[in-house]
Amino acid sequence: MYRTHTCGALRTEDIDKKVTLSGWVQKTRDKGFMIWVDLRDRYGITQLIFDESRTDKAEIEKAKTLGREYVIQVTGTVIERESKNQNISTGDIEVLVDKLTILNASELPPFTIENETDGGEDIRMKYRYLDIRRNPVKNNLIFRSQVTMEVRNFLSQEGFIEVETPYLIKSTPEGARDFVVPSRMNEGQFYALPQSPQTFKQLLMVGGMDKYFQIVKCFRDEDLRADRQPEFTQIDCEMSFVEQEDIMNVFESLTKYLLKKLHDFEIESFPRMTFDHAMKTYGNDKPDIRFGMEFGELNKVAQHKDFKVFNSAELAVGIAVPGGASYTRKEIDKLIDWVKRPQVGALGMVYVKCNEDGSYKSSVDKFYDQEDLAKWAEATGAKAGDLICVLSGDTNKVRAQLSALRMEMAERLGLRKSNEFAPLWVVDFPLLELDEETGHYHAMHHPFTSPKPGQLGLLDTNPGDVKANAYDLVLNVNEIGGGSIRIFDKETQAIMFKHLGFTEEEAKAQFGFLMDAFEYGAPPHGGLAFGLDRLVAILGGQETIRDFIAFPKNNSGRDVMIDAPATLDNTQLSELSIALNLKETE
Amino acid sequence: MYRTHTCGALRTEDIDKKVTLSGWVQKTRDKGFMIWVDLRDRYGITQLIFDESRTDKAEIEKAKTLGREYVIQVTGTVIERESKNQNISTGDIEVLVDKLTILNASELPPFTIENETDGGEDIRMKYRYLDIRRNPVKNNLIFRSQVTMEVRNFLSQEGFIEVETPYLIKSTPEGARDFVVPSRMNEGQFYALPQSPQTFKQLLMVGGMDKYFQIVKCFRDEDLRADRQPEFTQIDCEMSFVEQEDIMNVFESLTKYLLKKLHDFEIESFPRMTFDHAMKTYGNDKPDIRFGMEFGELNKVAQHKDFKVFNSAELAVGIAVPGGASYTRKEIDKLIDWVKRPQVGALGMVYVKCNEDGSYKSSVDKFYDQEDLAKWAEATGAKAGDLICVLSGDTNKVRAQLSALRMEMAERLGLRKSNEFAPLWVVDFPLLELDEETGHYHAMHHPFTSPKPGQLGLLDTNPGDVKANAYDLVLNVNEIGGGSIRIFDKETQAIMFKHLGFTEEEAKAQFGFLMDAFEYGAPPHGGLAFGLDRLVAILGGQETIRDFIAFPKNNSGRDVMIDAPATLDNTQLSELSIALNLKETE
Repeated sequence: MYRTHTCGALRTEDIDKKVTLSGWVQKTRDKGFMIWVDLRDRYGITQLIFDESRTDKAEIEKAKTLGREYVIQVTGTVIERESKNQNISTGDIEVLVDKLTILNASELPPFTIENETDGGEDIRMKYRYLDIRRNPVKNNLIFRSQVTMEVRNFLSQEGFIEVETPYLIKSTPEGARDFVVPSRMNEGQFYALPQSPQTFKQLLMVGGMDKYFQIVKCFRDEDLRADRQPEFTQIDCEMSFVEQEDIMNVFESLTKYLLKKLHDFEIESFPRMTFDHAMKTYGNDKPDIRFGMEFGELNKVAQHKDFKVFNSAELAVGIAVPGGASYTRKEIDKLIDWVKRPQVGALGMVYVKCNEDGSYKSSVDKFYDQEDLAKWAEATGAKAGDLICVLSGDTNKVRAQLSALRMEMAERLGLRKSNEFAPLWVVDFPLLELDEETGHYHAMHHPFTSPKPGQLGLLDTNPGDVKANAYDLVLNVNEIGGGSIRIFDKETQAIMFKHLGFTEEEAKAQFGFLMDAFEYGAPPHGGLAFGLDRLVAILGGQETIRDFIAFPKNNSGRDVMIDAPATLDNTQLSELSIALNLKETE
Repeated sequence: MYRTHTCGALRTEDIDKKVTLSGWVQKTRDKGFMIWVDLRDRYGITQLIFDESRTDKAEIEKAKTLGREYVIQVTGTVIERESKNQNISTGDIEVLVDKLTILNASELPPFTIENETDGGEDIRMKYRYLDIRRNPVKNNLIFRSQVTMEVRNFLSQEGFIEVETPYLIKSTPEGARDFVVPSRMNEGQFYALPQSPQTFKQLLMVGGMDKYFQIVKCFRDEDLRADRQPEFTQIDCEMSFVEQEDIMNVFESLTKYLLKKLHDFEIESFPRMTFDHAMKTYGNDKPDIRFGMEFGELNKVAQHKDFKVFNSAELAVGIAVPGGASYTRKEIDKLIDWVKRPQVGALGMVYVKCNEDGSYKSSVDKFYDQEDLAKWAEATGAKAGDLICVLSGDTNKVRAQLSALRMEMAERLGLRKSNEFAPLWVVDFPLLELDEETGHYHAMHHPFTSPKPGQLGLLDTNPGDVKANAYDLVLNVNEIGGGSIRIFDKETQAIMFKHLGFTEEEAKAQFGFLMDAFEYGAPPHGGLAFGLDRLVAILGGQETIRDFIAFPKNNSGRDVMIDAPATLDNTQLSELSIALNLKETE
């Protein structure tokens, strides 16, 4: 037996007990006649003491050879500690060692195994198994496990059945790129890894499963932006005989349950906002509502004066930055530079200082008098002491730019508190989205999303105006979940495919099985999927999903620890009936 | 709102309530003035009644158009049923319908949606979503979900953390074939799908995770034997600072917990048997111990007489078939034919009838007298009325043959009861297994399994004799779990790789990251993995794992419902920098 207790277990009431502990050497302090060792495992740290007057000389000699991260086993007696340590749960006691066994030596690790480590991102990824020994990473993984258990408990109690859907499925060129898997037994053919179990969960509804969920890996072969992973985990759900309201109720309850269980955070009910309102008020379909700075549109009050920039703009829109009137000219110039950076892309910024005496001082005083500017202040909700920042241009672009500025100012002002949770629903999304490059419409969510009742006819005349039975759950500027009521009849689905540019043959080849299924009594159904990685990170009060994944990949999709992907030998390729077809590299 | 109650909810106490139900039309009975409809959903069946004297004519006309599997919604009043149906939970009531809405029509399904269907395997696989509506399939999937929840509850309570390991990993030619995934971003390189998370769970132990589990999909590109799936699910576990006994205790407790929870079946403790004993006594390393018929080896008492067949055999071994003395000559001849079938492969069978009067009558009376045969009866435990069946030949082959006969006789005698559970541990497996074709040894479990203490030296002289710290959990003739204590030091692992025929370079290329990890304080660790599909099937009292998988593949690895795998278009191939390289088909 390697241990009687873990390194986090011993307390004052264990004093005088004979115990055996195993773990890693966190650090040693050698005073010659006395040696202290901090012994660490998943559960905590226990101080060991080797004392010349009470411990065998041979054991002391062994203790002197211990290095950091050595794996050892000790047997000894729990004694009261002279100087107690309030920072650790075992801080009242220490173990006076009788016997020390070195189970495994360790090279000096390439970075320190401490809460604050000296290791950079790259080296910690290469030695991820050492990084996981550090409390912040270890605790994130434990937290993730807790979240998934709570999700499963909640959904099971609600009557959801977890059903595993297949990973080796069929490629559908629509949407993001698939990862594919050559089939050896079916020569020249390929499986695809699922981007989501979307069609399978709908088939489970056709199969009468009624309430389905699954915590499941999904795969997307995208060029990786920062903090995207080629494989990611989804809490995937679907329900039958439900309307939008039913689904929102269940998953609002789930989210409340998690916030209560994990943070003892309670919230009555989640606000709801239409997509149009979110775009108009926050320039963003996943607004952060932990703070104000709502958009004020200024077309009415700022156009038709002599200021050409605004007159020629589709939209002039501003926010009131609290306390910003005190910014110096230099600070404001830096802010203007910030919005003009290519990542934001504004052409300039108009500002108005709302002075404490009620007067206004703006960068466009030539064109607007005090009365004009008072209307701007009214539209943006600016109070004395605030700075109104105004951007103008094409509606979609200028909203995105002002949203970026709003988030930046909130960050600078400390308004984005990670321990504060502000969930909301965004509803009434457009069904279709215009691809500005191709001029074609594609599905904003996916091709199975149903339009709002009675709007099907609009598809022919004003496709961009059709709203969907779709909803997103937003938490602290992140979309943590999204879903829709699905189309459940073959005719509507065929119309949708047509409008998305599928020929009948293409639709049949890719989704024929779903269309077939709709022939045999498909129930009304809908669902939702949470991005687990993101959800866990936000619930954990952090932003980087990689910190909540045991073995993440880097931005080139590589696992630098195991050095994957890697080349295959020719036998393996030949068995799979494929060959390399490398692009010219020059 | 589509429903106020499910189709399994209404009882006598709901009488007079106004309710709304939704579901599928199971069947209709039309008496002209009265129509009954059985309405079905996941939760049960509720009888609806349309009565000319109490229901609107328009609704009755609509009801007359209903076909099987139509999806409908009804509103009506719960009334007491005249002729109660004890077979269903809602059998005391029916719903007198006011209003009927047809939510979706249905084509006539290609097979009946009944417990006993008229559909063959192939058609049910193609329309799996309809098959899932049938109680036997639906209940299997619900049962599977229950089992996994119980497993998670148990392991969480035991302090295990569920950690997700990656699916896009690295191919290791050792062992079964990998499924591979071309990487678009890393040209000419491939990921592999995991055959198991073996190395990752060991790295988690190096990372101090202490107790890990995961319910996880694994992938193996094998030629599929009956009831094997290219993707399958494992309950994967690993623990640190443990010996074999610790691991067996945890997973014996888990199995007991499942048997108690799911079947109210209690068992004190699981018997343990060495691999050698299992092979000697049952000819099988996963013996069925629900019944006797243990092997009796007869070399001592049957060799060195004039019967050349036995004298030249490595092993003569028999079983006593209860009541078999009464078999006719013809029945025994058929049994002899059965063991001579190529699937079994025996060259013949010697038998002894143990007559009720204490005398023996054998097929080899010429060579053996009554005293000789009495010794056979003693060795096989045969009693008056039994039939001793004796096979002879090479030890390994004859054991397998007699094991097949033993199972067959047990089946015929009804001794393999699906509601009886007889778990046991098989321990002390050989570390290595001789590949008779190549003459090379390979790892019986996997290359990370540790040898029994002190046996490492034997690897050079008698590799086949080295025993492993490995154990299998066997339930009703199926290995449901297996595991081992792992090697945790670099030197031993290097010796193992050498004996398995890896060059140092090969070992480094494939498992370098694990060898590296062992440099930095790897703890003693070990684990176990359950095959979830098989476990669920056996706990469900059945044998076919496909019946417990929502969307299984056929023996060619195809999903016939979605028709995968499928061809890719050239753009997709080219993006992945691969081309087809089809074999000559002539």
